[in-house]
Amino acid sequence: MRKKSYHIAVVGATGAVGQKIINLLENITQFDINEVTLLSSKRSAGKKISFKGREIIIKEAKETSFKDVDIAFFSAGGEVSRQLVRSAVDSGAVVIDNTSEYRMSTEVPLVVPEVNAHTLIKHKGIIAVPNCSALQMVTALQPIRRLFGLERIIVSTYQAVSGTGIHAINELKDQSMKLLAGEEVTASIMPAKKDKKHYPIAFNVIPQVDVFTENDYTFEEVKIIQETKKIFEDSNLKMAATCVRVPVVSGHSESVYIELERVATVDEIRNVLSSAPGVILQDSPSNQLYPMPIYAAGKTETFVGRVRKDPDNPYGFHLWIVSDNLLKGAAWNSVQIVLTMVEKDII
Amino acid sequence: MRKKSYHIAVVGATGAVGQKIINLLENITQFDINEVTLLSSKRSAGKKISFKGREIIIKEAKETSFKDVDIAFFSAGGEVSRQLVRSAVDSGAVVIDNTSEYRMSTEVPLVVPEVNAHTLIKHKGIIAVPNCSALQMVTALQPIRRLFGLERIIVSTYQAVSGTGIHAINELKDQSMKLLAGEEVTASIMPAKKDKKHYPIAFNVIPQVDVFTENDYTFEEVKIIQETKKIFEDSNLKMAATCVRVPVVSGHSESVYIELERVATVDEIRNVLSSAPGVILQDSPSNQLYPMPIYAAGKTETFVGRVRKDPDNPYGFHLWIVSDNLLKGAAWNSVQIVLTMVEKDII
Repeated sequence: MRKKSYHIAVVGATGAVGQKIINLLENITQFDINEVTLLSSKRSAGKKISFKGREIIIKEAKETSFKDVDIAFFSAGGEVSRQLVRSAVDSGAVVIDNTSEYRMSTEVPLVVPEVNAHTLIKHKGIIAVPNCSALQMVTALQPIRRLFGLERIIVSTYQAVSGTGIHAINELKDQSMKLLAGEEVTASIMPAKKDKKHYPIAFNVIPQVDVFTENDYTFEEVKIIQETKKIFEDSNLKMAATCVRVPVVSGHSESVYIELERVATVDEIRNVLSSAPGVILQDSPSNQLYPMPIYAAGKTETFVGRVRKDPDNPYGFHLWIVSDNLLKGAAWNSVQIVLTMVEKDII
Repeated sequence: MRKKSYHIAVVGATGAVGQKIINLLENITQFDINEVTLLSSKRSAGKKISFKGREIIIKEAKETSFKDVDIAFFSAGGEVSRQLVRSAVDSGAVVIDNTSEYRMSTEVPLVVPEVNAHTLIKHKGIIAVPNCSALQMVTALQPIRRLFGLERIIVSTYQAVSGTGIHAINELKDQSMKLLAGEEVTASIMPAKKDKKHYPIAFNVIPQVDVFTENDYTFEEVKIIQETKKIFEDSNLKMAATCVRVPVVSGHSESVYIELERVATVDEIRNVLSSAPGVILQDSPSNQLYPMPIYAAGKTETFVGRVRKDPDNPYGFHLWIVSDNLLKGAAWNSVQIVLTMVEKDII
């Protein structure tokens, strides 16, 4: 069978996620790429990015940018997706959208291939990639849920700064250097660039990710709750979240409490995780083996460890879940969606 | 009434907690200090520390060091307490022990003055200071518990390195500088000096505090669970903990889920916290006001914010609790115990 061949566009090509998508596409062998269109804001247009040894000039993303594009990856923020995704779809492209813009639309599948690849067939031009915090969590919980059912989740996150973009990484590094030199620091990005106040993240922990919404939950907390219910197709799932930023460059960590529908043992949970797709079990207390963000960075898998029985609830377990928020949490999941669609002959 | 006057000893005078105790004692006005004996390991003996403008030579801590001592603060680790606390008590001193050595002994009150000062009267020479993570949590939860009852706690911690001592602070700083300079790093202290493997803490998160014990929980997790039940005098309290080290110098943060016995509103919880002793409510989402470790460092209070109703359980609430682990979490609570005993005429 001849390999399929596509014209690919990347919107947000200079961003942290866009760059990872380009890197991943360079190494894809399951389909051919006959053309690459790299798009960005006006400000970055004209810059060059290397793709498979070829220099590609970045163009300004416009409504007319998607002629003949088969697949368009969007990771330039909600506003750019709001302005341009429809044009891309109208031009005949399938959009893989990395922003929160379309995630909760009933017409848009919200896809983690290990969990709900079956929903891809229903797409109407747009497929949404979940929020990074929800993404790694559902990847790790799906195999447990399939076997033992899932009643409830309480998650506390330890989120890296890279999800906020390259500027946030630079802010963390600059602040760290200044504090180590005994100098004063200022903050202009964390916890949320568009919010009023900013706080230093270096040697600090900020219990705010994204802006505040209803009931004093942040938008990140609302997203992780709503998206998890949509991905699991379970509106009755009980779920709460506390999202916290920590001074880590890449790799989100999550302390997760779950209540199952059926009784299980720690060994059963470990067993199911050890053979789950996209999951690597790192759980050997006697060898001090557990997931950590500095070792998960650069990897596409989701790492799980610290599996423990709750001392009081026979259906309760505690886990520690870590993944690279730019890879499985965004870029890799986007590319994985396309690979799955190619394999399933949906595209 | 004439002020009381005591001969005070500080064992572990060169350590992170010992130094804070000495600083706090310098500013105490409620009683007089007629003599100060500063004690340490053989290695640090001979060094000088200034106390109220006077240079005091540190002596090696021995069984014979406690003659005429009225009050002895111990913060030199469990082994030193195991060796010397009994000698201090036999010499007539009241020991305020900052290690885990005697905390769970039925004869030893485990005291947080805001919570269970009434247990001080039962002391037999030793009063234990709880683990820092338990300490700040019970301080914040006690006023809520008193009004609404407390069924269950699930806590995930974000713990600073300073609890492990001055060497851990230096390790975090050294590793941070090296990583920022693009150099490789080594680790020799975190997550637990006495454990086999060590991992970098700079720009990382380590889901291990202290060594592993039974059921794959760490000793820190066991301590926070057991000590909370002892302080609250409630063996039926349901409780689980996941203890995590973050690259913060001072200030432990905790994401805490609680289930109350009686229904409450967020406003009622905020109200009771706003007038609770030793607690400062920092909770205004519209003003992005919430506790953070860099602002709690150096303060003796426990800061609480991010109070939210659980979306599913009408008895469930989420909170964010931050305090300086060396002050309320250790040194300040120790001094506060003595102040309370003086006030209650127990000493």
